[in-house]
Amino acid sequence: MAIISNDLQRKTWLEVKKSSDFPIQNIPFGVFTRPDKKTVIGTRIGDYAIDLATLQALDYFKDIALDKNIFTQDSLNNFISSGRSTWRKVRNRISDIFLNSNTELQNNITHRNKAVFAITEVEMQLPIVIGDYTDFYSSREHATNVGKIFRDPENALLPNWLHIPVGYHGRSSSIIPSGVPVRRPWGQMKNKDATAPTFGPTAMLDYELEMAFVTTNANTHGDIIKVDEAEEHIFGMVLLNDWSARDIQAWEYVPLGPFLGKNFATSISPWIVTLDALQPFKTNGPSQDPTPLSYLQGNGKYSYDIHLEAHIATEDNDFQTITKTNFKYMYWTMAQQLAHHTINGCPVRSGDLMGSGTISGETPDSFGSMLELTWRGQNPIQLKNGQSRKFLEDGDTLKITGYCENDNIRIGFGECIGKVLPAHKK
Amino acid sequence: MAIISNDLQRKTWLEVKKSSDFPIQNIPFGVFTRPDKKTVIGTRIGDYAIDLATLQALDYFKDIALDKNIFTQDSLNNFISSGRSTWRKVRNRISDIFLNSNTELQNNITHRNKAVFAITEVEMQLPIVIGDYTDFYSSREHATNVGKIFRDPENALLPNWLHIPVGYHGRSSSIIPSGVPVRRPWGQMKNKDATAPTFGPTAMLDYELEMAFVTTNANTHGDIIKVDEAEEHIFGMVLLNDWSARDIQAWEYVPLGPFLGKNFATSISPWIVTLDALQPFKTNGPSQDPTPLSYLQGNGKYSYDIHLEAHIATEDNDFQTITKTNFKYMYWTMAQQLAHHTINGCPVRSGDLMGSGTISGETPDSFGSMLELTWRGQNPIQLKNGQSRKFLEDGDTLKITGYCENDNIRIGFGECIGKVLPAHKK
Repeated sequence: MAIISNDLQRKTWLEVKKSSDFPIQNIPFGVFTRPDKKTVIGTRIGDYAIDLATLQALDYFKDIALDKNIFTQDSLNNFISSGRSTWRKVRNRISDIFLNSNTELQNNITHRNKAVFAITEVEMQLPIVIGDYTDFYSSREHATNVGKIFRDPENALLPNWLHIPVGYHGRSSSIIPSGVPVRRPWGQMKNKDATAPTFGPTAMLDYELEMAFVTTNANTHGDIIKVDEAEEHIFGMVLLNDWSARDIQAWEYVPLGPFLGKNFATSISPWIVTLDALQPFKTNGPSQDPTPLSYLQGNGKYSYDIHLEAHIATEDNDFQTITKTNFKYMYWTMAQQLAHHTINGCPVRSGDLMGSGTISGETPDSFGSMLELTWRGQNPIQLKNGQSRKFLEDGDTLKITGYCENDNIRIGFGECIGKVLPAHKK
Repeated sequence: MAIISNDLQRKTWLEVKKSSDFPIQNIPFGVFTRPDKKTVIGTRIGDYAIDLATLQALDYFKDIALDKNIFTQDSLNNFISSGRSTWRKVRNRISDIFLNSNTELQNNITHRNKAVFAITEVEMQLPIVIGDYTDFYSSREHATNVGKIFRDPENALLPNWLHIPVGYHGRSSSIIPSGVPVRRPWGQMKNKDATAPTFGPTAMLDYELEMAFVTTNANTHGDIIKVDEAEEHIFGMVLLNDWSARDIQAWEYVPLGPFLGKNFATSISPWIVTLDALQPFKTNGPSQDPTPLSYLQGNGKYSYDIHLEAHIATEDNDFQTITKTNFKYMYWTMAQQLAHHTINGCPVRSGDLMGSGTISGETPDSFGSMLELTWRGQNPIQLKNGQSRKFLEDGDTLKITGYCENDNIRIGFGECIGKVLPAHKK
């Protein structure tokens, strides 16, 4: 089925600023609470949040086979389970409803008042119930930087890294939607020269600029997903901030990996941008040498050209950009990550979330964490107000943004934002 | 409220063998599918599976405030959310219904036929929807053995181990109930002397003898759970087999921990034995030196005296016991694990599962994995039929059993069993 919704000629009767992340060609999916406290599934065009549950109840989707209550839910999981051809039909239909030549809803003020809200009127929720959350580690530059900082500068990249899209399991319960503040966590840490660990609030609170993809129920237990089939099972993508407490992480992570240094909070942007909307921005990732093992090989462009930025604001200083990077720098593609994740038969379900790992580029201004930007605090970031930062301080706000752009169009992800609250008193 | 159900004088009108794991003092909770294909929540006494949904519909729980459909569900999560005082009331009431002096159900053949099944007539299901699965690493002997085998015999225990109940996130989607067979996984592995990794079915398939506890919704995001309050939030325990592919694990696990070497399958026993039922078997764990940090200290006996065994059967050989160990050997208690897990504010929900890690004792016959028993294949296990095993072979069946026992009573966990299926062809 054609992705009619991607047609660049299409204009909508809703007002959309040229700089908006959400033209009528985007049509992401999310979950929001309306002013009357009802929570529904919706989409966004420009600065409007559109209630798909109400549109369905008003018969706007009558030509698509959909469960009656598919949009009156507080998560997208069931809709995601309905599969790619259904997502495509629904996006095409939404594109039709809001097309400037279509007067059906445009001229029906009663329906519009029921289904179309200003984005400022609604409260965005976590869009999915996340069964399992996996975080990969697929940026070569990030893995190299971390290796240099924490281990051996001469052998920064570990021997398995160029063969395996290394990943680990994260904690679903601590994933929060953009906007929810993050409490500075307590934990154990040990100074290099100390004989025993100490207990206190982290002194090295950091962000990690990541993206993540959301899967559908992809395979049955024991079966695999091939690289060239993987994208059929990916619903879409979000921005992700993998908040990290570097001192807790450094002391705990050998040999079983990061745990409390990560699972106090992970933020995601609330609108899931579909892979269909991102088709015009498909590109090749970096060339891979050595050649990956057979199950990690595929034929196709499986990376995406997505500009990514991180910005910091302090209590008395406006946002200032500290990272400029791109999703296409990632060494391993999402298709390879999903093929690797299932090569042992591990089941992937609707609503599972898979993070990219921190996305760093080659130049220092493209590093995706303060750990790398300040080289573990050695080179503090200078802020415009004269302050500096080794790591995040209480009251700081960290915002991640991301967008694809060419001469014709901009498809964006909105923002993933969180403010740092001071640690609980003892 | 008194735990009346633990009263040793209580006898039931159902037939219970003296060797049974499920006397009327046990009253575990599980989920099973009845002969008519309805799935319900139930308990077990002797070799009878008791349908609590039907008993509720027949008004046997009318004096307890319970949601109307609390037992007509395919998971225990909502019942677990109702809290410890409700679990206790329900167990006390079940104990009353089946007390030999109580003729209410005993003499009502119609009701008995509707609610009481032979255990062989029902199919056990996974008892909970597992939001997050954490696996700890809390047996000192196991951590020491693994350190000797994989790392440095002279410094086997890593520096953080005596300070932190080390744990990591596992994969919820691959957890299966006892009885479901396990497919030998494919994966990447690299021989020590090889220059590049290879791709194939694991040649080092192993079991890990563990137990796990199931939590209720314990804290809100950002809050902690203290050691002395932790057991209020633990619903009960199961046996767990953390199936492991040692060659895949060894190549992938640095630096982010085990991933595909574990997430192809994890089996649990289907009956959750409540902490209330285990009260008579509370004991102290090993003394802890150095003294743990303040947030890991508590006042009370938080370990349990639970005998644990692993048994192997081959296609032509009956079960033969290869591990005899005890839960009380664990260095870190469940209460400490839960306090540690939440010290950074990580939220714990109803139905989360937390594994102990492999439970090994000091003597070689108490080692809880083939990795340790055979010292990575150096000393194969001799089977009664003349065969030997370095690791598990296709067609082998691994069974874990566990029980508490004193002069008066035996409270057991049943079994956690799985048969190894050959790998898929390429």
